[in-house]
Amino acid sequence: MLEEMLQRGRTAQKSLSGSNGKQRNQVLLEMERLVRHRAEDILRVNREDVANAVAGGLSGPLVKRLMLDEGKLAGLAEGLRWVSDLPDPLGRGLGQWRLNNGLRLETVRVPLGVIGLIYESRPGVTVEAPGLTIKSGNALILRGGHEALETNRMLAALWRHALKRMGLPEDAVQLIENADRQYAVGLMHLQGLDLLIPRGGAGLIQTVVKEATVPVIETGVGNCHLYVDKEADLEMAIRILRDGKVGNPAVCNALETVLIHRDIKEEFLPRAFQALHNDGVIWHGDDEVRAIVPDAVVASESDWAGEYLSLDIAAHIVGDLNEAISHIAHYGTSHSEAVVTESYPVGQEFCDRVDAAVVYWNASTRFTDGFQFGYGAEVGISTQKLHARGPMGLEALTTTKTIAWGTGQTRDF
Amino acid sequence: MLEEMLQRGRTAQKSLSGSNGKQRNQVLLEMERLVRHRAEDILRVNREDVANAVAGGLSGPLVKRLMLDEGKLAGLAEGLRWVSDLPDPLGRGLGQWRLNNGLRLETVRVPLGVIGLIYESRPGVTVEAPGLTIKSGNALILRGGHEALETNRMLAALWRHALKRMGLPEDAVQLIENADRQYAVGLMHLQGLDLLIPRGGAGLIQTVVKEATVPVIETGVGNCHLYVDKEADLEMAIRILRDGKVGNPAVCNALETVLIHRDIKEEFLPRAFQALHNDGVIWHGDDEVRAIVPDAVVASESDWAGEYLSLDIAAHIVGDLNEAISHIAHYGTSHSEAVVTESYPVGQEFCDRVDAAVVYWNASTRFTDGFQFGYGAEVGISTQKLHARGPMGLEALTTTKTIAWGTGQTRDF
Repeated sequence: MLEEMLQRGRTAQKSLSGSNGKQRNQVLLEMERLVRHRAEDILRVNREDVANAVAGGLSGPLVKRLMLDEGKLAGLAEGLRWVSDLPDPLGRGLGQWRLNNGLRLETVRVPLGVIGLIYESRPGVTVEAPGLTIKSGNALILRGGHEALETNRMLAALWRHALKRMGLPEDAVQLIENADRQYAVGLMHLQGLDLLIPRGGAGLIQTVVKEATVPVIETGVGNCHLYVDKEADLEMAIRILRDGKVGNPAVCNALETVLIHRDIKEEFLPRAFQALHNDGVIWHGDDEVRAIVPDAVVASESDWAGEYLSLDIAAHIVGDLNEAISHIAHYGTSHSEAVVTESYPVGQEFCDRVDAAVVYWNASTRFTDGFQFGYGAEVGISTQKLHARGPMGLEALTTTKTIAWGTGQTRDF
Repeated sequence: MLEEMLQRGRTAQKSLSGSNGKQRNQVLLEMERLVRHRAEDILRVNREDVANAVAGGLSGPLVKRLMLDEGKLAGLAEGLRWVSDLPDPLGRGLGQWRLNNGLRLETVRVPLGVIGLIYESRPGVTVEAPGLTIKSGNALILRGGHEALETNRMLAALWRHALKRMGLPEDAVQLIENADRQYAVGLMHLQGLDLLIPRGGAGLIQTVVKEATVPVIETGVGNCHLYVDKEADLEMAIRILRDGKVGNPAVCNALETVLIHRDIKEEFLPRAFQALHNDGVIWHGDDEVRAIVPDAVVASESDWAGEYLSLDIAAHIVGDLNEAISHIAHYGTSHSEAVVTESYPVGQEFCDRVDAAVVYWNASTRFTDGFQFGYGAEVGISTQKLHARGPMGLEALTTTKTIAWGTGQTRDF
């Protein structure tokens, strides 16, 4: 079955890549219209998925991810319009040059081909991801979580309707409707698939990265740090810390550890503790932290190494910038790292030396997000260094082709 | 041992990435000087490697790859100067933008980190590859073929000398001197290695791609085609065909199959056959080809599917452009594909629809080469779509980092 889907995807992709940008944008705008027009139906189906999941014992944060509401749907529709307004990534020149013998070379962006996406819970992905893949001329095979199956089925059907309506092949978006795990595994080994992107928890991502024999981009594990320097504006640091933890602790751009310069620990910790405690955050700290805020839980190695993805924060005292950078290099996942400081040299050095997809100076790690970055949506946040790093928008879904126009040039020998 | 090399590489890389472009260029120029100055010693050691390899029964084309001479060394030295003259890829802005809330973002190129290279025979790689990795701020662990060990050892020592002389850490270039296969396998599983590049025959590359658990870029398998359209300049087609086969049949940008439009087969085939026959090329053809040139060997599926890497060429007659494109899509490896035609629509359609790293219109596939492209050298030719496609120069050895300068921005919730 997967081989057939791949074949159909490949055929659809060829026709998509031969279409013009305006046609592809019209599909996105048609889907925007459908999402708004059919919002009631989508929400009804989604409520059924949620009810079944709750009856099946799905836990709170996962239910929250599964649930759509009017606001979320409107945001997704808005995102489609945003993406449709972005310039067409295809055919864009990345460089052109001429050899001494007159051969003219030009490198342009072309689609990757057929892309697979394995994701959990969030049915919003079924709106966002096809918007990016269609716009960038790729075919997409979706494999969502079984708990969201009916919502995904409806959204995928709307996409196929929009494609057909605009004269493009509906197989540019295909959904694997069978919830059996063998289809997820099959996707990981589907030879000829140009890219597989896992989106979800660390377990899913690690399984895909280790098991897959097709090209994969690792996404989404974010053990993000905030370093509060001795020259920090402490009010700003507390605001940024709270923003990075409380709003949505279950996503990858959430803060997991705060590193505090020893010189300001007495002044900063009690206030920060109280501010986050009021929001229900549980603090974990080393001895030095607990000497100041005794209500903090004892932190051990696992507190530094993992993502909580919950209303917990680890706190650690450091002696200087070097110690902070070393801690981040050791435990960080190169996702998003932040420093709060009024010191120019400290901020510069932090930004220079910390190796991560996005490094923030006096700003919240929450901006590591395709929509915030202005990409209209994201197909995931890459935490690897090859091909794409950080929020993946349209460009991450393309590769290049160099075209050489000659008049009979040979190298001779 | 490999873990130690990785650790030393990582430390060296940090210091390298903190150095300025001028310092890194000076290392390349010092190595250029050493290669020229010590040419006699290098060639003597290389002659010993060659003598041992021949005594051990190494075959003709492999001996040719192993052998250095004055001309090759001068070319390698020249390449280092060329690379040193290229702009510094590090810190180059790839985009900067400002969010509505005033947050300023900038994406810049940064080094990948520690790179591994597994290669066969050609000791020239030991000059070329470190030139690119040092310039792009990366540390390199080399694993060359055992037959070239003494030459590689000398060249790696010269690199380390040049690094030290210029005040940079010599561990930016490390050579695995033990020929045991376990070290190659170890490199494929060396967790923390940022990239592993295999360079060599299809066997080596496939082993690395399948076995490695570290990030890999697939290189070098090229089943390249030339399509001779009915509106081709036949003299030009024969020149390009001969250029693509005869000069060096053992490399990946060599032509393996010529596709000929049916309308010109009678006029083209006898002349092309004769021209290449004079150079010792053996033709393989389907029945339609052999009806015109009976001396061609019978071609079967394997002739279309594989690389000869020898003085053999497969010939196949096609009815039109579509058939040629389908043949290439089915058998090609997306490396380099060429069309010879005077027809504007045929050339345009070929360049549009053929999906390959480089597509040539009236030019030889031989230009798919880092030096020819103006990169000064190449660390390999990527035949995959992710991260890098085609000849890999300095940019392929970098990743990106986005830096966000804020004044306390939060997303709020």
